[in-house]
Amino acid sequence: MKKIAPIFKIAPIGGLRQIGSNLTILKLSNRWILIDIGILFPNDDFYDIDYLIPDLSQIDSNKVTDIIFTHAHEDHIGAVRHLFEYFPKIKIWARPFVADLIRTKFEYAEINREINVFKYHETLNFDELSIEPIHVNHSIPQTQGFYISHKELDTGIFFASHFRVDLESGYEEKFDFENLKTIQSRKNKTLAMLDSTSILNPGKTPSEQSLIPAFEEIFKNQNGRLFFTLFSSNVFRVQTIVDLCQKYKKRLCLLGRSVERYTETAQKANVLNMPEKLICSTPEAQANPNCIFIVSGCQGDFFGSLRRLVDDQHSDFKLKKTDTIIFSSKVIPGNEKKVYRIYNVLAEKEVSFITARDSLIHASGHASQKDIEIVMDQIKPDYFIPIHGESYFLKKHSAFIQKTYPQIKTHTLFNWDEIHFLNDQTLSIQYNKAIDPLIIHGKGIQIEKSAISQRRKLACNGSVFISLKRKPLFCKIDLKGLPESVQRDIPAYKEKLLQHFKSNLFKKSDLEAQEALRIFFRKMLYQRLSYRPITTVQII
Amino acid sequence: MKKIAPIFKIAPIGGLRQIGSNLTILKLSNRWILIDIGILFPNDDFYDIDYLIPDLSQIDSNKVTDIIFTHAHEDHIGAVRHLFEYFPKIKIWARPFVADLIRTKFEYAEINREINVFKYHETLNFDELSIEPIHVNHSIPQTQGFYISHKELDTGIFFASHFRVDLESGYEEKFDFENLKTIQSRKNKTLAMLDSTSILNPGKTPSEQSLIPAFEEIFKNQNGRLFFTLFSSNVFRVQTIVDLCQKYKKRLCLLGRSVERYTETAQKANVLNMPEKLICSTPEAQANPNCIFIVSGCQGDFFGSLRRLVDDQHSDFKLKKTDTIIFSSKVIPGNEKKVYRIYNVLAEKEVSFITARDSLIHASGHASQKDIEIVMDQIKPDYFIPIHGESYFLKKHSAFIQKTYPQIKTHTLFNWDEIHFLNDQTLSIQYNKAIDPLIIHGKGIQIEKSAISQRRKLACNGSVFISLKRKPLFCKIDLKGLPESVQRDIPAYKEKLLQHFKSNLFKKSDLEAQEALRIFFRKMLYQRLSYRPITTVQII
Repeated sequence: MKKIAPIFKIAPIGGLRQIGSNLTILKLSNRWILIDIGILFPNDDFYDIDYLIPDLSQIDSNKVTDIIFTHAHEDHIGAVRHLFEYFPKIKIWARPFVADLIRTKFEYAEINREINVFKYHETLNFDELSIEPIHVNHSIPQTQGFYISHKELDTGIFFASHFRVDLESGYEEKFDFENLKTIQSRKNKTLAMLDSTSILNPGKTPSEQSLIPAFEEIFKNQNGRLFFTLFSSNVFRVQTIVDLCQKYKKRLCLLGRSVERYTETAQKANVLNMPEKLICSTPEAQANPNCIFIVSGCQGDFFGSLRRLVDDQHSDFKLKKTDTIIFSSKVIPGNEKKVYRIYNVLAEKEVSFITARDSLIHASGHASQKDIEIVMDQIKPDYFIPIHGESYFLKKHSAFIQKTYPQIKTHTLFNWDEIHFLNDQTLSIQYNKAIDPLIIHGKGIQIEKSAISQRRKLACNGSVFISLKRKPLFCKIDLKGLPESVQRDIPAYKEKLLQHFKSNLFKKSDLEAQEALRIFFRKMLYQRLSYRPITTVQII
Repeated sequence: MKKIAPIFKIAPIGGLRQIGSNLTILKLSNRWILIDIGILFPNDDFYDIDYLIPDLSQIDSNKVTDIIFTHAHEDHIGAVRHLFEYFPKIKIWARPFVADLIRTKFEYAEINREINVFKYHETLNFDELSIEPIHVNHSIPQTQGFYISHKELDTGIFFASHFRVDLESGYEEKFDFENLKTIQSRKNKTLAMLDSTSILNPGKTPSEQSLIPAFEEIFKNQNGRLFFTLFSSNVFRVQTIVDLCQKYKKRLCLLGRSVERYTETAQKANVLNMPEKLICSTPEAQANPNCIFIVSGCQGDFFGSLRRLVDDQHSDFKLKKTDTIIFSSKVIPGNEKKVYRIYNVLAEKEVSFITARDSLIHASGHASQKDIEIVMDQIKPDYFIPIHGESYFLKKHSAFIQKTYPQIKTHTLFNWDEIHFLNDQTLSIQYNKAIDPLIIHGKGIQIEKSAISQRRKLACNGSVFISLKRKPLFCKIDLKGLPESVQRDIPAYKEKLLQHFKSNLFKKSDLEAQEALRIFFRKMLYQRLSYRPITTVQII
């Protein structure tokens, strides 16, 4: 009897426990192909660190040969600079707009590598595996799902990371069910792996097109300057504003590096049509009341143009009471306080603003329950695995599918688990222990979890630095992040410290005495503060 | 001609820019009366600090004689321990349950002060001012608004800080419109000052009673253990669970100090009816499958029982796959990530949970737009001022009233502004510059904004300590919160530092050399990391 063994594996190692750091490995017999390599924006309790990425050191670097990209959002391409540290020879495959955005990342990181640009309708062949792009709708141009087929398997895989179904987009082609169904018919069975980001939303994600009336209303009723803020990568939304500027004979001024970068790249890749003469320079915009603005930083980001504008710290523009800010975006979970701060400052300044709560000016890029149903009804899969969302969302997605399509076999897996496609044409799941992501701060540099935990302690307790000389006995004390009332008592603390050293520690080794002084000092401060500042003592 | 001058002033100094730290000053000719003294829970970027309070040092301490409380939530009584630091002789007035909860705060802070308990229907007289409690509905027992009347004014003030209108509560008396209207009829005009917390919600806040069916459904369908988590102060919600435990012959186990404290105080004050025999001790609950749990920490608080339970760190109970957690609470803005983390861990553990998204198991304690309309229609005020909410909410509240009741004169004010009641019987607003709140960390100790900003820098950049001895030339370097890769290069950095000192600094004073070394070291690390650790140098 032939032993049942996997002939192909799919291993998601990022994105299946969190929203971000998407990375999936297709494990062929002799080579591994990656899909996407994104970043995860950290929780606030990671402080200012830049991002997290899956731990690439845990992947067999000899096996990885290629990476293909679904689309150009940061949670899919953001960690591309780290690829070559682990897989020096890896080949990159991307659609033109995606490739252009990856190139700007390479320039920034001083990486000089070629990108293989593939066309739509092109099949990418990797030995026994073929991957065909299937156009899906999303909030950024040139987004595709992949139809993945292995020549020894009679189950094909439709992998659609992030998408929505926009039945009347007008900005992009329709979701390519036609092509998908043609390709799909070559195999007996289908496994669908679909986006879970918006699965908690019942109903249908609105079409990008459906926002135009509300935007047009805003243009029509314009009384003062209009500042639109949105996710800079949302090229379709920018196109709406560009079109309305033309219709209403307005000029357009772009505020912020990120919106400048995306629009420039989108124009080069022919996915944005923005006539040169529409654009208004800063000095022109300062003088021209007929100018519309698009501003980066819709999440209230600390260094974003919006925040600087709202806080009177923008170098070129100052808000007036007659201005209106339009928040054409949602608040990403975790950013609520930052965005509400902006709302509050605007309210205090009596500057009007419109949010997606007031009017239909934002549509998610992600599939709600109805979108998922549309895809399921078109492709009628045999197996289902939810991908890309927090654990909670993946579970909810599975439950939704099990309830709506009880005949479909549904599995829930998390990062580092593996889907095994077996030589008896069945499918099984190998559940593995997840491996913690790497934390990146600064120049793409890894920082350990223990260091982050030290930062947390510094932030929550402040810090004390003590140096001590034995002969003549003398010490210096520096406080950081502690109340002034403690600072005032430093001379008294110094005296107690030296007294304690003289009485109990002068015969001890530097190492022992340092530790004893550290504990002594922390205890004194604890009695006063009821928390213990991080204390470092150096006897020198 | 008589000069127009204020004969009475109302000055809110907390709560009118943020949700929390509620404090309003009633300024009579010879004495000042405070209403409430609450805390504000900080943003995440304040790290672990405990809370913020209005800057009491900016209030004339000779004038303040009394404080009265509307209800017992932390944002109304939480800063009570700080009162006596600023107003040593202040008299306290509170309803019995509120007084009991204040007393437990006093015990904790080792304060021994009397509280004057007032009854409902009692009028509190402070010279020319009289204050009458008006029962309002809320999510904690014994909540009142105040009808405030000044004997020389023909405008009375209805001040209702936090409330909802619960038309069929069953747990508490109805909103006392009858009494309010009788009292109100003594004056010609009314100024209404009403809660803005839930003004963004159209519709009506559900009745506490309306949650019972969903709770009952959960009890009926019980398959394993049930853990309810809710705001511990929500005594009415606890009563619902107690009642259902009795109906379904269950025992009840309380997990967490906060739920224990509130239920104990509520029983003493006769606002909770919980038979002794219902309560199940920890060992009993461990063995009894028929036990229902109420767990503190519904916001995913770091030291809360819920978080410990979910993270397998609870000393007495371990979650099982057959358990169900019921989140009978909303997520307070800013806590989204913490609560979602809990949801995710539960999903990964395959423990079921129900949130207010799934079923009607939570009702806000605050007035939605319809609640506000009910109050407005009953009392038909002449003036309106929204209170208690973020600036954004206050503006929205004013806009809502102006649109719905255009005949009512509406003013929007923020903390430290003043309402002036003039001797010509008109009302005017004096807009003042707001004063920053005080930040409290540890044993009720004030900490300066500059120290918090230092903590932020420590958290985001890590920290370096260097001590240096001139003779023989020697130095020690300690890193905190920095990557291990930097730690490994400390010997090389030491050498460069000493070399720089020898070549350029050995003739400089300690002070000058310290600063030069600090800059030198930060520059070296910046080149490597692209951020600058907080560096302290001590030459000793």
